[in-house]
Amino acid sequence: MSAIVVAIDAMGGDHGPSVTVPAAVAALRADADLSIALVGREEAIGALLSGSESLGGRLRVVHAPEVVGMDESPAIALRTKKQSSMRVAIDLVKAGDAQACVSAGNTGALMATSRFVLKTLGGIERPAIAGVLPTINGRTYMLDLGANVDCTASQLLQFAIMGSSLVSALEHKESPSVGLLNVGTEDIKGNETVKQAGELLRASGLRFHGNVEGDDIYRGTVDVVVCDGFVGNVALKTSEGLAQMLSATLRAEFGRNPLTRLAALCAMPVLRSFKRTVDHRRYNGASLLGLQGVVVKSHGSADAFAYGFAIERAVEEVRMGLATRIGEQVERLQQRAGA
Amino acid sequence: MSAIVVAIDAMGGDHGPSVTVPAAVAALRADADLSIALVGREEAIGALLSGSESLGGRLRVVHAPEVVGMDESPAIALRTKKQSSMRVAIDLVKAGDAQACVSAGNTGALMATSRFVLKTLGGIERPAIAGVLPTINGRTYMLDLGANVDCTASQLLQFAIMGSSLVSALEHKESPSVGLLNVGTEDIKGNETVKQAGELLRASGLRFHGNVEGDDIYRGTVDVVVCDGFVGNVALKTSEGLAQMLSATLRAEFGRNPLTRLAALCAMPVLRSFKRTVDHRRYNGASLLGLQGVVVKSHGSADAFAYGFAIERAVEEVRMGLATRIGEQVERLQQRAGA
Repeated sequence: MSAIVVAIDAMGGDHGPSVTVPAAVAALRADADLSIALVGREEAIGALLSGSESLGGRLRVVHAPEVVGMDESPAIALRTKKQSSMRVAIDLVKAGDAQACVSAGNTGALMATSRFVLKTLGGIERPAIAGVLPTINGRTYMLDLGANVDCTASQLLQFAIMGSSLVSALEHKESPSVGLLNVGTEDIKGNETVKQAGELLRASGLRFHGNVEGDDIYRGTVDVVVCDGFVGNVALKTSEGLAQMLSATLRAEFGRNPLTRLAALCAMPVLRSFKRTVDHRRYNGASLLGLQGVVVKSHGSADAFAYGFAIERAVEEVRMGLATRIGEQVERLQQRAGA
Repeated sequence: MSAIVVAIDAMGGDHGPSVTVPAAVAALRADADLSIALVGREEAIGALLSGSESLGGRLRVVHAPEVVGMDESPAIALRTKKQSSMRVAIDLVKAGDAQACVSAGNTGALMATSRFVLKTLGGIERPAIAGVLPTINGRTYMLDLGANVDCTASQLLQFAIMGSSLVSALEHKESPSVGLLNVGTEDIKGNETVKQAGELLRASGLRFHGNVEGDDIYRGTVDVVVCDGFVGNVALKTSEGLAQMLSATLRAEFGRNPLTRLAALCAMPVLRSFKRTVDHRRYNGASLLGLQGVVVKSHGSADAFAYGFAIERAVEEVRMGLATRIGEQVERLQQRAGA
């Protein structure tokens, strides 16, 4: 048995096993310290595994007969689908048979189930979803991306603590800078909750940069951008929509006539390299933070290449002991606040 | 005297008269039915007006000695700068000497001063800022973009009514579709305020599409996207940041070496045409809606080309009788609700 075991919800996502199985096999080939439990319908998974795979026994299939639908109510999924691939994968983490769960399934159900089964860390009221985004000079982490549509100031502070721990673990930064997403940089800007969160952050002991605005996200002004899940979700999806629109427009311009198609041919290597740099698939994998265990959510539409990044994220979080780090950081800052 | 008079806050914005004066002259040349009052420091404006301008007396300069700073507190600007170019321009609208005011100045001060001087329309609690954005198949209008960081459900309904009137006036659409920006399309999604707003919108008599997500903005799913000013401001600025990042990355890729620079040369006409299509300057000009008068805010960093679009917007709103239309629409829907 190797060092790290990841449980994969093989049925989750728009494409299910046709993505999760090849992604799992590729991840095992790339990392000899990794074992994977593919959780889901045995026959669906087995059909995609050729018998010739020589992975040193690091891949096993755990049968789970049920599947949580992408549009299913999280509460109903949690209550009625105890044999779903998602639930069984999370149960494996709870039982200590795996150290992390990766799923491309229904986000709400994944959050509700993870929270119910794994429980939150001490000092954390509600878990949050953290994603990584490309910036002009690197990458930035942002949370919450949609788990919490109504947040209090102290929850925003908890998000900041978790985000800071995440970046310090994944990017090996001692003291990541934290920005509070707002409608202006001055302290007096924003709604009441955000203003209170600003006060808590200034007193927190974290490296608080202050307020940041929407354009600071992609400028890489800070390592961690903190916001409530409503705002974070809108910002993320707006970005997706804009990127799609720009890319469709660029394609249309290059396809306009024989001359522009020739120009496209000529510019192809550069456009390819551009696409690679900003390829959202490389940023796939959002961390469910604040749980007693590692859970990573892949985009529902991810292909096997993108899914691989979500698995990598989970492995790295286990390797760096993320959940323990967050727990310690919360405790340290609470003692500081109490002192 | 020609049909429409626009009062321009000549000192507002990052560049002041060096942008506003040439933009005004160009607008007058393009539209023989337009008169402009350039409001600000006479000597600064005069220095940029060559005596040879033959504009048939349609341009006049109105002296205003004070300037509202870009970072000044709106409350202080309103209380202490009664001779500012911004205030005097709005006063001209109030006095009936102009039908619209255009300013690239401090947004908060422009909103506070407009509201104080012009007053809101009956049935509108708070004015909102509406902008226009490119979509894959045209354009969409979005409000609020930052005037109101805390909104009630009934205010969101009022934004929807105003946005609908705006699109019907500017795009000549009988019954524009309205979407409520949310974190999912199902009715049960979102925070309490948004859920209540959804109920109000379903009962409103507007053509309510339902919830839309961030990626629907640039997809052009609806004609009007309604959200509170916090979310709208973040979505807009996030878009600006992403567009800048992508454009900088594309430039870097094309500038990498002699070969890529050759490719850039070859692709130049297409890239230019692409840039023109998505040029944010063409979308410059945000409408302050819900006032007894037309006020348009230009982006602070606008150049003369961009500023011209803000002037055009103001002219079109006057021509279409926007304020009256909004007033009538509010009344009609209120009667409907009361009936």
